[in-house]
Amino acid sequence: MPAKLRAFLQSSGLQVEQTLKAALAEQSDASALFAAMNYAALGPGKRLRPALVYAAAQALGGTAAADKSHEAAAALECVHAYSLVHDDLPAMDDDDLRRGRPTCHIQFDEATAILAGDALQCQAFELLAGAPLSAELRIRLVAELAHAAGARGMVAGQAIDLAAVNQSLSLEQLKQMHRLKTGALISASARMGALIGGANEAQLAAITRYAEAIGLAFQVQDDILDVTADTSTLGKTQGADAARNKPTYVSLLGLDGARAKADELHREATDALAQLGGNTAVLQQLADYIVHRDH
Amino acid sequence: MPAKLRAFLQSSGLQVEQTLKAALAEQSDASALFAAMNYAALGPGKRLRPALVYAAAQALGGTAAADKSHEAAAALECVHAYSLVHDDLPAMDDDDLRRGRPTCHIQFDEATAILAGDALQCQAFELLAGAPLSAELRIRLVAELAHAAGARGMVAGQAIDLAAVNQSLSLEQLKQMHRLKTGALISASARMGALIGGANEAQLAAITRYAEAIGLAFQVQDDILDVTADTSTLGKTQGADAARNKPTYVSLLGLDGARAKADELHREATDALAQLGGNTAVLQQLADYIVHRDH
Repeated sequence: MPAKLRAFLQSSGLQVEQTLKAALAEQSDASALFAAMNYAALGPGKRLRPALVYAAAQALGGTAAADKSHEAAAALECVHAYSLVHDDLPAMDDDDLRRGRPTCHIQFDEATAILAGDALQCQAFELLAGAPLSAELRIRLVAELAHAAGARGMVAGQAIDLAAVNQSLSLEQLKQMHRLKTGALISASARMGALIGGANEAQLAAITRYAEAIGLAFQVQDDILDVTADTSTLGKTQGADAARNKPTYVSLLGLDGARAKADELHREATDALAQLGGNTAVLQQLADYIVHRDH
Repeated sequence: MPAKLRAFLQSSGLQVEQTLKAALAEQSDASALFAAMNYAALGPGKRLRPALVYAAAQALGGTAAADKSHEAAAALECVHAYSLVHDDLPAMDDDDLRRGRPTCHIQFDEATAILAGDALQCQAFELLAGAPLSAELRIRLVAELAHAAGARGMVAGQAIDLAAVNQSLSLEQLKQMHRLKTGALISASARMGALIGGANEAQLAAITRYAEAIGLAFQVQDDILDVTADTSTLGKTQGADAARNKPTYVSLLGLDGARAKADELHREATDALAQLGGNTAVLQQLADYIVHRDH
């Protein structure tokens, strides 16, 4: 990873953790609930979605825009964290290990994990409502996040993914599932940052193409790592998707085909950035990182 | 029930169902998810929260305000429906029957019920973001709902309730649990309607006192019905709370004490309405109904 990107990720990661810590400081009698929310939102993680918010805001609106992106960045991380907590539940993917730690329902209990996920989703919208931005911009961000996270976005993708266990999916169906399950929130991250940065419609279209390409590339790389990385590097059980008989890019395209697909998506992202304008150095490095990461 | 209240509830119920049907018309590949969302949000129910939104908006802003309250009313019903779906899950209250029908995870499956609840919460914020109101008012409604539904409101109450099984609670702790678990959303319903109706700060304080009183009265009456009504009238298992060894107003105050408490709260609600001003006839009849209902 280039030193510049490493510094950016470290800074945006610290920033979002500070915002999350303040938002999740205990303020009710439900101490286990808050402990579980903190465990889920502030555990180890790549903080990729907050980084995208900050990078897109900075690219179009400079430091002033990035400095107003804390709530949006934290909101995206809350939704991401809630989705992992619920995905890991016994009735869903039934995972015991996440990022090298016990999953939330193992560390606490199932009821607390369900409630912590519910509260984290709600917290995301509370954060957006309190952002230091115009009411017009805040409500636009609420609309973006609600659409991306709901029944026509992330949750639909998770439902399709669950229905796909032991089914054969076409490449098109697999793409659609990932476009919803992980792509929608990644696109929302970049779009929300760009909106805070003052994007016009053409710029919003360009950042969306960029985000859709890296979102899918992220998933392709996940599928590649599921068969090539070992469990300790990955922080989750290696080969878990294959063992569950889920269709993956590797099972449909082979390892070389999946790698070629990741490269193609990387080129698409780079092309979209050329049309975005602004200072796209960090967004480019994020695209590079997503395709070349080893965990 | 007076004819005027019956007509009001019928009209506001039809209105919110129409809004929900339009919002939940299937628009993704996840057909089971949408079926479960519709099942949960559009099944039989009192539609009390939407009625409060409409009644508060109408009291302060007349028909014009009520006509702009559809999205807020539907948003409240989405959050209420999601909370019931998740509360009924095996890891939570483990209920098979709700309003005389199989609960969502029995009718579908557990994973679909978790996801339908998640998506219904998200849908609530999407509805508010698209309401025909100023951006300032919409973001205020988002802030109200997010605060009431989250870790310092409804979800905290559910967490405290779960922790209270087989515990002895003081009357104060029981009140605090209900204030969060059901009271927060009922207060938000009345407050959001009042805000759409153009409430000033004094009116917002009065409607909040009214709503807190009827919210608690609703729960006291629930506890009374849990021991006095039979299962077919109730639409859920009679005596379920007592069997689960949960503390209730009846177990702490006795049946007569609980009835006296309900009457006291009814007087508080009536006093608060006297300070609200506006046309409070329907709000008064709603308070009467909550204390005198038999299911």
